[in-house]
Amino acid sequence: MDQEKRPQVYVGMAADIVHHGHVNILKCAMELGEVTVGLLTNEAIQSYKRVPIVSFENRKLLMEHMKGVEHVIPQTTLDYRLNLITLKPDFVVHGSDWKKGKQTTIRLEVIETLAAWGGKLVEPEYTSGISTSEIIERMKESKKESKSD
Amino acid sequence: MDQEKRPQVYVGMAADIVHHGHVNILKCAMELGEVTVGLLTNEAIQSYKRVPIVSFENRKLLMEHMKGVEHVIPQTTLDYRLNLITLKPDFVVHGSDWKKGKQTTIRLEVIETLAAWGGKLVEPEYTSGISTSEIIERMKESKKESKSD
Repeated sequence: MDQEKRPQVYVGMAADIVHHGHVNILKCAMELGEVTVGLLTNEAIQSYKRVPIVSFENRKLLMEHMKGVEHVIPQTTLDYRLNLITLKPDFVVHGSDWKKGKQTTIRLEVIETLAAWGGKLVEPEYTSGISTSEIIERMKESKKESKSD
Repeated sequence: MDQEKRPQVYVGMAADIVHHGHVNILKCAMELGEVTVGLLTNEAIQSYKRVPIVSFENRKLLMEHMKGVEHVIPQTTLDYRLNLITLKPDFVVHGSDWKKGKQTTIRLEVIETLAAWGGKLVEPEYTSGISTSEIIERMKESKKESKSD
């Protein structure tokens, strides 16, 4: 593959609490090319979910340390279009879970936007049994704690 | 540096919920050489802290996807000595926080064990304001939730 012009891959993520579901998405993305993570800003996360647990800056530090992640840029809205039009990636990678629920419209906009330059949406199967919200629930049940890790 | 014989670096971690504090430790470790993470088993974590939120297998998947982590092996007790004697690493890296509190004895045993082959303990300054336990507390305060990430 020509190292000078690798396919560009865009992955939008909140990455508030990072788990192996994120790893599965990133593994898929890095096989496709050069990965840019569009990290949702706090405002973007709040718009559809909750106030994030971890600050944008610290989420960025963690995401930059994940294998295969070459760039991390802010995604300031849940709407991908502004970043996509700017970057014109060859691929967007997102878990298959957004085919249903709140993000259905966002997904369709991504497909339509990518089509303008022949870009494709790739949707690895959603990693079941894990999500940040599930981790939060498990944590709420966690009784025994200590001061630090 | 001779790529065939890089210094060996050992990092013991629970890595239940990974945050930028872990990244700081890993950045320090990878600058020193070839990093093996000794991932605490569930039993090891329970022995001093709490039941882990995330399974060993899934913690391993995430840790293996962190930049600079070349090997992940189990550390079955809070006591490092068995793994250290087996691997004889040139360096162990741990945050400076364990100079106080429950792990003081563990730390002294690490220093003493490493001394047998001239290994050194490296202790980057603990990243304040973040720990898994603090994240758990913030999560408990988290009101608004949704089904998935």
